[in-house]
Amino acid sequence: MSAVPSLRHLLLLRPRLRFIALSTSSSPFLSYAPSHHFSPSSLRVLSSSSSPTLTQEEADEAVGKGSSLIDVNPPRGTRDFPPDDMRLRNWLFQNFREVSRILSFEEVDFPVLELEALFIRKAGEEITQQLYNFEDKGGRRVVLRPEITPSLARLVIKQGKSVSLPLKWFTIGQCWRYERMTRGRRREHYQWNMDIFGVSKVRGEAELIQAIVLLFERLGINSSDVGIRVSSRKVLQAVLQMYAIPDNLFTQVCVIVDKLGKITREEIEKELLSLGVSIQAVNGIIEVLSLKSLSKLEEVLGSEEEAVSELKKLFSLAESYGYADWICFDASVVRGLAYYTGIVFEAFDREGKLRAICGGGRYDRLLSTFGSEDIPACGFGFGDAVIVELLKDKGLLPDLAHRVDDIVFPLDEVLDGTASRIASSLRKKGRSVDLVEDKRLKWVFKHAERIGASRLILVGNSEWERGAVRVKNLSTREEFEVKIDELV
Amino acid sequence: MSAVPSLRHLLLLRPRLRFIALSTSSSPFLSYAPSHHFSPSSLRVLSSSSSPTLTQEEADEAVGKGSSLIDVNPPRGTRDFPPDDMRLRNWLFQNFREVSRILSFEEVDFPVLELEALFIRKAGEEITQQLYNFEDKGGRRVVLRPEITPSLARLVIKQGKSVSLPLKWFTIGQCWRYERMTRGRRREHYQWNMDIFGVSKVRGEAELIQAIVLLFERLGINSSDVGIRVSSRKVLQAVLQMYAIPDNLFTQVCVIVDKLGKITREEIEKELLSLGVSIQAVNGIIEVLSLKSLSKLEEVLGSEEEAVSELKKLFSLAESYGYADWICFDASVVRGLAYYTGIVFEAFDREGKLRAICGGGRYDRLLSTFGSEDIPACGFGFGDAVIVELLKDKGLLPDLAHRVDDIVFPLDEVLDGTASRIASSLRKKGRSVDLVEDKRLKWVFKHAERIGASRLILVGNSEWERGAVRVKNLSTREEFEVKIDELV
Repeated sequence: MSAVPSLRHLLLLRPRLRFIALSTSSSPFLSYAPSHHFSPSSLRVLSSSSSPTLTQEEADEAVGKGSSLIDVNPPRGTRDFPPDDMRLRNWLFQNFREVSRILSFEEVDFPVLELEALFIRKAGEEITQQLYNFEDKGGRRVVLRPEITPSLARLVIKQGKSVSLPLKWFTIGQCWRYERMTRGRRREHYQWNMDIFGVSKVRGEAELIQAIVLLFERLGINSSDVGIRVSSRKVLQAVLQMYAIPDNLFTQVCVIVDKLGKITREEIEKELLSLGVSIQAVNGIIEVLSLKSLSKLEEVLGSEEEAVSELKKLFSLAESYGYADWICFDASVVRGLAYYTGIVFEAFDREGKLRAICGGGRYDRLLSTFGSEDIPACGFGFGDAVIVELLKDKGLLPDLAHRVDDIVFPLDEVLDGTASRIASSLRKKGRSVDLVEDKRLKWVFKHAERIGASRLILVGNSEWERGAVRVKNLSTREEFEVKIDELV
Repeated sequence: MSAVPSLRHLLLLRPRLRFIALSTSSSPFLSYAPSHHFSPSSLRVLSSSSSPTLTQEEADEAVGKGSSLIDVNPPRGTRDFPPDDMRLRNWLFQNFREVSRILSFEEVDFPVLELEALFIRKAGEEITQQLYNFEDKGGRRVVLRPEITPSLARLVIKQGKSVSLPLKWFTIGQCWRYERMTRGRRREHYQWNMDIFGVSKVRGEAELIQAIVLLFERLGINSSDVGIRVSSRKVLQAVLQMYAIPDNLFTQVCVIVDKLGKITREEIEKELLSLGVSIQAVNGIIEVLSLKSLSKLEEVLGSEEEAVSELKKLFSLAESYGYADWICFDASVVRGLAYYTGIVFEAFDREGKLRAICGGGRYDRLLSTFGSEDIPACGFGFGDAVIVELLKDKGLLPDLAHRVDDIVFPLDEVLDGTASRIASSLRKKGRSVDLVEDKRLKWVFKHAERIGASRLILVGNSEWERGAVRVKNLSTREEFEVKIDELV
């Protein structure tokens, strides 16, 4: 027999223990209440509002001789994924992957840490002003990537030799930003990206939007819950040309104009004027951006305008794909990334309660900003945060409990070898098996219910003498004696 | 028709272009050779040994006016995952996940960025001397985690309230270390971790080792390729007691002794002596660590010793599980992490060509170092690097080509709506569909072969007039005309 105290011993013999620890962060703090043993009920999380009045010394003293409790929270603005949250994330990512497979995209990935140079752009984008950047020990400027498209472009350039166009890649990865923590916004999120390189036609955008719609449909969301606003940066480009505004201001104008609705019109005006845009042009821009009808846009810009013909083509393709009811023209959509050059789009909840669910567009000139030859490209990023809020609101979160096939439970310690043999044999058949020891039978039944086990296999002395075990089918409540060799 | 130039135009009309760029890293550099268009054959990767002699000015001039090519490599010591590498990684991770499911473990995850305090230990471990650490903009000391166990322990403490013991968690995540780049070692790898909290018996270790063995078996590796060396830190503990060496030196002695075989015996001796360990004790330690037989160990330490009884129990359970041929006792296994307290193990290739494939052990006292109540625990980490080397050596890497069900190809641009409708309808049935445009039929056939498409669906004018398409079964080479509505 093992000389190590058994778990039961450990639980029963543990001395009375009391320690209460103050977390250093603002989140609810953990309180270990007086208890005879470590058990779920002996631990309570107290909300800040119901904090008992404890001095720091009491807390320090409570956690024991000298060693005070570490901060049990992950860095501010970041998340842990305990099992429930992880199952939800896996389920969401599995849907991202399945839609990407259906669209025949291949998965790629990149380091979460990149050289800062990849993200340094001077257009005033929010994303480049909130870089989670550092200097490493070798004196290199590095950054936890704020987005994935530049890495994607980097790999396309690097792969040069072996790339066959068009190239359709997707990735799911964590992105970071360092901003002041307001309104509960986080400093990291996961993002699903789909990108096409080598397709200059709006077919590219049409495929991307189908992927987004297929994803929504798989999640149980329909076009009365969510819409996709579509416009084109070429609308703004045409307006700038009307007012003879130099091309080199285009990107900065886009980044400023994207803030419409987030900051006041006065502030937008001020920023545009300081760029050298005339007040007439400012008014012209804002007027065009208020358009919500494609025919109106055609009236203003003329049907020969690329912005108009491309958007009309996209809406015509949307009819063919069968997702026309999901999309609408809205000239105010500009998107905040500097590198978009053509069609841009974003999905939104029709109740207007949430931020954009995803966003994307065409970026035909990104590669030349990296010193390489341009390849026409488009893509989108779809975060893991807003979609989960929406699913929660709509009651669409799936039931994702931990599931196990069998529980194997030896009723006597001397049978632990037999229990091992049985568990091992079932596992080799691909069944998920939880081998439980040193618990009361009552606990085992409760546990079986909690993990939705389909069978409980009891290894007892009298059955074992007959080379058998008792098998309880937990859905039908039937019980059988089964020969160990015949267990499947 | 779209006013944007088609891809074909783009490819055919592109002017002669030549640029050659020198990468700033030591890796092979990319050379864009003279070419009429951007195509796979026009790009070559030259190895450093065959570098043409190019001055930096030539390179700068070659990449165009002013904008020089960025470094196309990810940060030194990190990897991109282009599609082939990503498929391999996904396949490996899928096996990790499947084995974890079979053992009834639940998946969890943590931020890759953690507070540095979680990893500051003063035992002289290599892992804490190579922290990839920074100061963030808020003045916090943060770190790209070098391992996952401390995050796991942090979450166990944080979850307190809701934790039901035993708790069986697994995770797959990226870990980082900052060391001088020698011998091609990387600065990041992915690691599969399985951990059990709340089981004090060697059942915990026995379960973990079964998981490792099941993983090897799934990958096609057998016990003549790979073995698992097992020992216990309690062996060292017993030897230290024999020589009356104070308990508080235990961890440091373990960390030093783990370097046996990596640095010279003289250096080990020197380090132990400077810790205050007598030369007699040093000799005694090194003698016991050379033991490869459990009965010999029993002779030296006595059968009452915990180290002996636990190891004997583990080997007896291994017989029951059916993996005894995989494991062997080897007292020299100590493992380099400070927090192990009991059984330790590592998997190795029997040819002795590679580093340890995975390693783990019992760490019953980690939680108290974080100021919380201890819970008995054990776990292992299994990296993604050595296993892939081994699979490569053994010819066990799977064939993981990109696979697509259908290619839809409109033979005329006016049929792009019909092609969209067909692709959309097949995708809604869950088929993966690549919609190809603006290519020659010859390219499409080659492409179909490359992606292993099972069907090619040609959308042509004459068939379309009959409401039909031509479907070519690419495995049987048969061709049929199928009504669009009847396509499944």
